[in-house]
Amino acid sequence: MKKTDIAIIGQGPAGLSAAIYTARAGLKTLVLGCDPKVAGNYVIDNYFGFPDSITGKELIELGCRHAQKFGAELICEKVLNVHQADEGGFEIKTDISTVSARAIILATGVSRVRPGIKNISDYEGRGVSYCVSCDGFFFKNRKVLVLGEGIFAANQALELKNYTPHISICTQKKKDKITDDYHKQLDRDNIPVLTGKVVELRGEKFVEQAVFEDGNTSDVDGIFVAMGEASSLDFAYTLGITTRGVFIDADYEQRTNISGVFAAGDCVGRFLQISVAVGEGAIAGHSAIAYLKDSAAEKT
Amino acid sequence: MKKTDIAIIGQGPAGLSAAIYTARAGLKTLVLGCDPKVAGNYVIDNYFGFPDSITGKELIELGCRHAQKFGAELICEKVLNVHQADEGGFEIKTDISTVSARAIILATGVSRVRPGIKNISDYEGRGVSYCVSCDGFFFKNRKVLVLGEGIFAANQALELKNYTPHISICTQKKKDKITDDYHKQLDRDNIPVLTGKVVELRGEKFVEQAVFEDGNTSDVDGIFVAMGEASSLDFAYTLGITTRGVFIDADYEQRTNISGVFAAGDCVGRFLQISVAVGEGAIAGHSAIAYLKDSAAEKT
Repeated sequence: MKKTDIAIIGQGPAGLSAAIYTARAGLKTLVLGCDPKVAGNYVIDNYFGFPDSITGKELIELGCRHAQKFGAELICEKVLNVHQADEGGFEIKTDISTVSARAIILATGVSRVRPGIKNISDYEGRGVSYCVSCDGFFFKNRKVLVLGEGIFAANQALELKNYTPHISICTQKKKDKITDDYHKQLDRDNIPVLTGKVVELRGEKFVEQAVFEDGNTSDVDGIFVAMGEASSLDFAYTLGITTRGVFIDADYEQRTNISGVFAAGDCVGRFLQISVAVGEGAIAGHSAIAYLKDSAAEKT
Repeated sequence: MKKTDIAIIGQGPAGLSAAIYTARAGLKTLVLGCDPKVAGNYVIDNYFGFPDSITGKELIELGCRHAQKFGAELICEKVLNVHQADEGGFEIKTDISTVSARAIILATGVSRVRPGIKNISDYEGRGVSYCVSCDGFFFKNRKVLVLGEGIFAANQALELKNYTPHISICTQKKKDKITDDYHKQLDRDNIPVLTGKVVELRGEKFVEQAVFEDGNTSDVDGIFVAMGEASSLDFAYTLGITTRGVFIDADYEQRTNISGVFAAGDCVGRFLQISVAVGEGAIAGHSAIAYLKDSAAEKT
């Protein structure tokens, strides 16, 4: 297992700005994630210091080089989940490896992909969940459906095996991005991957039935939403971090309510701009440095 | 009198970042101030996006060009004071002109020059003041000494004439930077400029006597500190903005307690870094835009 002082999840402006600070302070810094959304070909007009055109892609390249210059290690792996480790610190599972970190900075941006079910909000907390680690327990031996098209969904489904054998995945008609390795594991565990689309939920008080686009229905007790890739919000659910809608609660020092976990950038939901993400990243890095210094002092 | 939608005081990263947003939103934007402290020859290492060496001076030049590109007007004038105008909005007096603005963003950084008097804090609120507009009234016909070497001090002394004829300025042994024009006005109003240095204050409960470095003493009822240039803090005092020590209180939207006045960067006293100043500037700009939109809507 890879060990690091600080794991930063997200390689956008907030994560990289944080990495510049923590790596420069001599802390071992891993930045996980790949291809942040901002790294596109559109022109960024309003980030202070670039009066001439710069694309998101170019700016992120500069930022990656900047963080690496101070020794931060950038790893292109998809983070699937984050847990508090029994022995203290945190354990991060990616599609490829497991990382142990003393502190975490969440900076994946906000990119909640909605599954496109018209009345889904009526059933949130009544059978619809966004977090297997939080709610899986309530579905012991019940029939559950995981909505999602990628390895995030596959991983959530496999985690549900701890609670129930009655699991299916539904890609909601999106292109199946689950890797062959994961498909093999799903086959082994008898978890079918459906390619249709659930468009409506039915049930008196709790979810009882999923209605598919083709009119078919399927009896179901629980729906776990895991569309697209796992985001800071998903990690926040697992870690027990307080949220406001799709945003993570962070204070002026970018601290969440969980000691050792910080958050910066769009996932915090202030003003969704690169300038702001960069500033918050710097503060999150600064706070993480102070946190590790304090916790080291406590041990001696 | 020059009129503008938004006057930004301070041409550092916070002020220029704010200007990029407000000018880009089509608001008439004046950025007042000159030669921010950050515009030096030292290298900036940790502002996201510049992995190769850039000096403070170069970064500020880029930032000025960036704000001007969207139509912000940069004016190299020293702001002496800021008041709420009777007809609404704000009036800003500089060494050269007067500006009327609908909203204000304070972003002068924090650069409180101390007068070097060992027991000055014992007399704060007991004869020692940092704001003529706030406290001048309490010194009617009393003997007051203004500490300062520049036109900020000269201007404070001239404002004191509304309350008392017994005024002197003391430069605290710093090089006299008061302009000839101001010297003429001071002469006309019988305000002498002393070049010695007050090193101690005496008095039972309130200031009664200033002790100079050469051992001489002078009876005095009030001391007004106006060293160096006027800063956001000085403007905050005049505008009635709440402060914490040398810092201005601002909320998550960079709003102060005075409607229409915003603050960003080091003067707010969060984490004193360019990254943070840039982020806060963007937010202050955004909030000022929203404020002007709302106040325009109220009028129609």
